[in-house]
Amino acid sequence: MTLRLHNYWRSSASNRVRIALGLKGLPYEYIAVNILKGEQGSAVHTARNPMKQVPTLEILEPDGRTIELRQSVAILEYLDERWPDPPLLPRGLEARAATRALAELINSGIQPLQNLATMKRVKEGGGDDRAWVQGFIRSGLAAFEAQVLFTVGQFCVGDRPTIADCCLVPQLYSAERFGVAVDDFPVCRRILDACHELPAFTEAHPDKQPDAVAST
Amino acid sequence: MTLRLHNYWRSSASNRVRIALGLKGLPYEYIAVNILKGEQGSAVHTARNPMKQVPTLEILEPDGRTIELRQSVAILEYLDERWPDPPLLPRGLEARAATRALAELINSGIQPLQNLATMKRVKEGGGDDRAWVQGFIRSGLAAFEAQVLFTVGQFCVGDRPTIADCCLVPQLYSAERFGVAVDDFPVCRRILDACHELPAFTEAHPDKQPDAVAST
Repeated sequence: MTLRLHNYWRSSASNRVRIALGLKGLPYEYIAVNILKGEQGSAVHTARNPMKQVPTLEILEPDGRTIELRQSVAILEYLDERWPDPPLLPRGLEARAATRALAELINSGIQPLQNLATMKRVKEGGGDDRAWVQGFIRSGLAAFEAQVLFTVGQFCVGDRPTIADCCLVPQLYSAERFGVAVDDFPVCRRILDACHELPAFTEAHPDKQPDAVAST
Repeated sequence: MTLRLHNYWRSSASNRVRIALGLKGLPYEYIAVNILKGEQGSAVHTARNPMKQVPTLEILEPDGRTIELRQSVAILEYLDERWPDPPLLPRGLEARAATRALAELINSGIQPLQNLATMKRVKEGGGDDRAWVQGFIRSGLAAFEAQVLFTVGQFCVGDRPTIADCCLVPQLYSAERFGVAVDDFPVCRRILDACHELPAFTEAHPDKQPDAVAST
């Protein structure tokens, strides 16, 4: 079986999946999709991912079938169902719901408002894209900082990394990138430091990817 | 046990949960939160939902505990794990991933870009909020229309309603509301008509809710 991740070094949704693959100990081929050059809009990529987004995870099964998975959170859930050890969700129903709510706070509450397509649209409309992004990241992380208190341990939910951490760490990278200081969110800061002790998180870091460039 | 749904008639995320509760046959108390009046920002609501969003589902357990659930997709997953019959996700891992990818296409790919807070921000920046919303709904539904072909039967995934339908139907209501014709998306149109045969969908419709008003 071969896993092939179509992704982009700086895409936070891509980063979530890289982290999860690392936590599961699953090796994968890195296929770079340069979203600054519009490669996500190519015919072949659009057939694979109609939203023209990264990541897409391809799984080449031993029987010759190819599975294509889209949407980072759906991919995280798939990885956890197919390769349950180590788990990316806690056992109890209530804790699972709290974990997913933290992941969704970022996945639907922050990231869509700061991705490349959205920022482009803000600029086209004559808006200040940097102020836009900073505002949504700040208010989103402030809410995350409050909501995570219901469950926080060493990581977002207790003492093992979950899909919430897979979403938080890339979001904090984007925060710094757009001029929002992670230190303004001390609980997030502490979780980030704990995650950075684990190779799955450091190896998935944007700067470590083969398509990373020194500056933009 | 009592279920209490803090929600708003026109909120599509609220509507998703109303549909799922209906499909599961779970009665609930309807607590209206008027987001046009900013009630989601009250101290009591913010303590419950730090993102100042609807819906929040409260479950008052027989033992006196109260569970608070946030983020509509996390709530749908919780309902399906706690009350598995009838299922809102198919059985096979690949079909589950495809279902979640469709739900997320809407949950993270369309809805965040058309919700009240985002539209307000577009207006504040001097942009045309109606053109903004129409653009994201149109491109998002076009992608959904392509992606759903991988799995479509009578509903989004095969012949039973899933969380993908719980997300699609409210999104199509928003489309019409903002001037995007559902008829431009014939597969979505057909799924919508199938859903409207089921009381869980029609009873959850915004216009049927106690806080609905005739016009805005």
